[in-house]
Amino acid sequence: MPYRAAVNEFSFIIEELLDAEALRETEQFGDATADLTSAILTEAGKLCDEVLAPLQRAGDLHPAKLENGVVRTSPGYKEGFAAMAEGGWIGMAASPDHGGMGLPMILTSAVNEMMSGACLSLQLAPLMSQGQIEALEHHASDAIKELYLPKLISGEWTGTMNLTEPQAGSDVGALKSQAIDNGDGTYSISGQKIYISWGDHDVAENICHLVLARIPGAPEGTKGISLFLVPKFLPNEDGSVGARNGVATVSLEHKLGIHGSPTAVLQYENAKGWMVGPEQGGMAAMFTMMNNARLGVGGQGIGVAEAAYQHAMAYALERRQGKSLHGFTIAAHADVRRMLMAMKADIFAARSIAMTCAYAIDMASATGDPVWTSRAALLTPIAKSFGTDVGIRVADMGIQVHGGMGFVEETGAAQFLRDVRVTAIYEGTNGIQAMDLVARKMMDGGEMAGRLLDEIEAKAEAARAEMPEIAEAVWQASETLRETTDWLVAQEDLTDRFAGAVPYLNAFARVLGAYFHLSAAMADRGGPREKLARFYVNRLLPDHTGLLEQVRVGQHDLYAMDLDELSA
Amino acid sequence: MPYRAAVNEFSFIIEELLDAEALRETEQFGDATADLTSAILTEAGKLCDEVLAPLQRAGDLHPAKLENGVVRTSPGYKEGFAAMAEGGWIGMAASPDHGGMGLPMILTSAVNEMMSGACLSLQLAPLMSQGQIEALEHHASDAIKELYLPKLISGEWTGTMNLTEPQAGSDVGALKSQAIDNGDGTYSISGQKIYISWGDHDVAENICHLVLARIPGAPEGTKGISLFLVPKFLPNEDGSVGARNGVATVSLEHKLGIHGSPTAVLQYENAKGWMVGPEQGGMAAMFTMMNNARLGVGGQGIGVAEAAYQHAMAYALERRQGKSLHGFTIAAHADVRRMLMAMKADIFAARSIAMTCAYAIDMASATGDPVWTSRAALLTPIAKSFGTDVGIRVADMGIQVHGGMGFVEETGAAQFLRDVRVTAIYEGTNGIQAMDLVARKMMDGGEMAGRLLDEIEAKAEAARAEMPEIAEAVWQASETLRETTDWLVAQEDLTDRFAGAVPYLNAFARVLGAYFHLSAAMADRGGPREKLARFYVNRLLPDHTGLLEQVRVGQHDLYAMDLDELSA
Repeated sequence: MPYRAAVNEFSFIIEELLDAEALRETEQFGDATADLTSAILTEAGKLCDEVLAPLQRAGDLHPAKLENGVVRTSPGYKEGFAAMAEGGWIGMAASPDHGGMGLPMILTSAVNEMMSGACLSLQLAPLMSQGQIEALEHHASDAIKELYLPKLISGEWTGTMNLTEPQAGSDVGALKSQAIDNGDGTYSISGQKIYISWGDHDVAENICHLVLARIPGAPEGTKGISLFLVPKFLPNEDGSVGARNGVATVSLEHKLGIHGSPTAVLQYENAKGWMVGPEQGGMAAMFTMMNNARLGVGGQGIGVAEAAYQHAMAYALERRQGKSLHGFTIAAHADVRRMLMAMKADIFAARSIAMTCAYAIDMASATGDPVWTSRAALLTPIAKSFGTDVGIRVADMGIQVHGGMGFVEETGAAQFLRDVRVTAIYEGTNGIQAMDLVARKMMDGGEMAGRLLDEIEAKAEAARAEMPEIAEAVWQASETLRETTDWLVAQEDLTDRFAGAVPYLNAFARVLGAYFHLSAAMADRGGPREKLARFYVNRLLPDHTGLLEQVRVGQHDLYAMDLDELSA
Repeated sequence: MPYRAAVNEFSFIIEELLDAEALRETEQFGDATADLTSAILTEAGKLCDEVLAPLQRAGDLHPAKLENGVVRTSPGYKEGFAAMAEGGWIGMAASPDHGGMGLPMILTSAVNEMMSGACLSLQLAPLMSQGQIEALEHHASDAIKELYLPKLISGEWTGTMNLTEPQAGSDVGALKSQAIDNGDGTYSISGQKIYISWGDHDVAENICHLVLARIPGAPEGTKGISLFLVPKFLPNEDGSVGARNGVATVSLEHKLGIHGSPTAVLQYENAKGWMVGPEQGGMAAMFTMMNNARLGVGGQGIGVAEAAYQHAMAYALERRQGKSLHGFTIAAHADVRRMLMAMKADIFAARSIAMTCAYAIDMASATGDPVWTSRAALLTPIAKSFGTDVGIRVADMGIQVHGGMGFVEETGAAQFLRDVRVTAIYEGTNGIQAMDLVARKMMDGGEMAGRLLDEIEAKAEAARAEMPEIAEAVWQASETLRETTDWLVAQEDLTDRFAGAVPYLNAFARVLGAYFHLSAAMADRGGPREKLARFYVNRLLPDHTGLLEQVRVGQHDLYAMDLDELSA
């Protein structure tokens, strides 16, 4: 069975779970009517099913290659990228001032997820451009905006983000790249950047690198970092592509998955660049891009999960093995059914969380209300981490559903796991996301988390009469999460929070997932969504107990053993 | 840091956790003194560290190849196999009557696990031979024993097991291979077998296939199946290798991992074979081999986990990133520390379970007491499934500890995950193991499980004064497992058991793991083992609550949605 983008699922979430009317009442998104929403999702779905999905295996089998200094991408990728660009999908969320569609993030997120499921390696290219577009919109000078935004939005050029260096990964502040002021409004950038997704390729005529570097004399750590735009080819005044800039592609990584995405090591040698945002304000500017990208990466996890689920489901419906009262294919067996339902239920939970985060971003943008901003900020690390964990878990279950066939590469089940594995690592590892959640996102003393829990419990109360077991389970889980959140924010030594950060994030996602399943059940009483909600509450929500128990342990047991004992 | 076999861990488990004295008091294993045990472990460890571990990458980079009908294994594999054979490691557990060492299974399991960690692909070859040796010892005629066993034990020949056919995987009874009686004590075997590990290779001069097939007229399903020994080359009277038999290697699979292990599709065309065991008693005979292999596969998971853990630990001790009060490497960060400790704690739990199972096999063999047999039977699916799940989980965490480096193949972290993934599938998927546990292994109404829980609770009682929190947690968990076991065995519709089989098995393993951690803590009061036990009880044992909650749901929620709804 070929991949089919989950158009109906997005429609359901937007129209039934999110308050789409409130969004449509804003000036900014008044045009995003139900009809337009439906048309956009359908159109994007068609592109995914017909154009992008057929490229997914080709990228794996014929990885991007660096030959004689030139990167050649996988067969069909140039055409695939062109189709995304022509459809306007790169600049969906970008301002119409420079050619974007100005659509809400809920649509961008939906379309990005659908495209990730179709072909993760290729979808990474526009995702990087989108982050760069947003960063430039917020922080670049008008001259840069005028020159670069139309090119990035149209897909004539693409964007990348350059943070990591060999000694500076999660610890961005340790970077050594330097930027020397040329005194003419430009800077000379030198240094080495690694893990640059789509850092070099042949699908567009120019590549614009957003590079973090330090001006000599700037303070150490993240404070002293500035952001620079460094194009591969220097643009002429008229926007045409001019001379080659001082950035060379040293190598492409040989990776576990996403073979179709060229991951480059880039060497900058006095490359000409332009500062974006204020001097020593590079981290803040880059974070605009990062937050967007983090939600996008969460969507990548969910997209691959959807594809892996469909793939496993098709196999389970066709593979005959043993007999059961319930049928003759393996989909009839209880344990296979349990896996398939867990896949579907987790995808719905992760997707609802991501869409709720996107909705908060839209409302923040449309209303300027800081409560929406805080809500988006709280949900972003959860959406990223849980979405990617679900991607890995579902892809892994997809292999298991296939049995021996799952271990054979030709089946395609293994590729999903190999591809999606990176999503838990890049744009901030899931450990970093969890630390962000329990530290920075709890600087309000847990107020925003508390508001979300109030909302969940109000929903549970309202549903109590109609579906008492589900409502009670959701309410109880929310209360346990609330108590643990109170414990967490009371810890002044951040290490006590970090010691349980990952289980805390996972439990938070579990409870949010239960909330959205309950909401879906209420919108589909007696229907398949209520049945799936019941499954989720029975079999996935119970995880939260053990997870939250761990959170309240604090740091002590982690440091009781010293490293000699641990590595003995 | 190169791989170092965990010799001391095995010594600790054998001498401190198992009742080694009771085993040494038996006639069969009286020679397996502490000194001999220690010498064997040390010697095998040396082979692993110095000879086998260096072959692990080579197998991945240079997979076994089928060219012009001949299989060429990876560079160094022939020499590696010869070293295992020369050391006598293939026939460790085999009877001395035919050249085996007659050592207890606890030593075979320990050595197999160490070898798996060193080089999984290659270790699979002797593991298959060991299963075949045991099956022939129990079920073959004297003539076959005389001819084949010395060759298999010495490693001159190797063994394989042939169950799976394209339409018959977990449902072995659906197989179609046929055996025609030639009337001269031999049979003509025809059919296709797939997924045959080490089904063809160049590391030994002959390959002996144990093949399940049906004699015309035999009943359908597993009842009508017989077992046949079919050598690649027909042996001459003097044991030398004669004419090629009618078995051809059609292809080798292109797999996610264990590239060094040739996984063959074999075509039998009137191949000459000899029946092993009684007519239509093939499944029983094959199960001797399977049970041995299941424990062995569990050990493969643990071995790879050990290697992945050491690999991640070495990286974490060297990689500097950020600062923490606890140090400058990433091993100082709370979340990395949490992952490293989880890896170590889970490895200990899984290894203790596997060794306890091996010990029960030894005691059953040495005493003939059916209680030991039942105990081994109950523990085998747990050892297989949990050991391989730990392998996957630890390898996955190992990637995460490496961050971006974990996704780059050259680092080696990804290979552990790719290699170990199959262990949850072959020799009966982990779902099949769980079904075996809740159905066949609970045919005693849960009596053997109850005995184990009595033992755990007695230990907890005894430890209560000295380490009250750990003891109480273990006791409580055991009680919850007991209640759930009572619920489980009361379900007469097996589907109600199967619906929670996997979570039940996982919870059982969690509780057993806690028991062994408690035992280790009592043997090392105030030392690193008590600290690790505390971590396990704090952070891994709590999983059991959510898992057992799922078990008691039964089948209803799995079948509430029909397949159309599920795949919509």
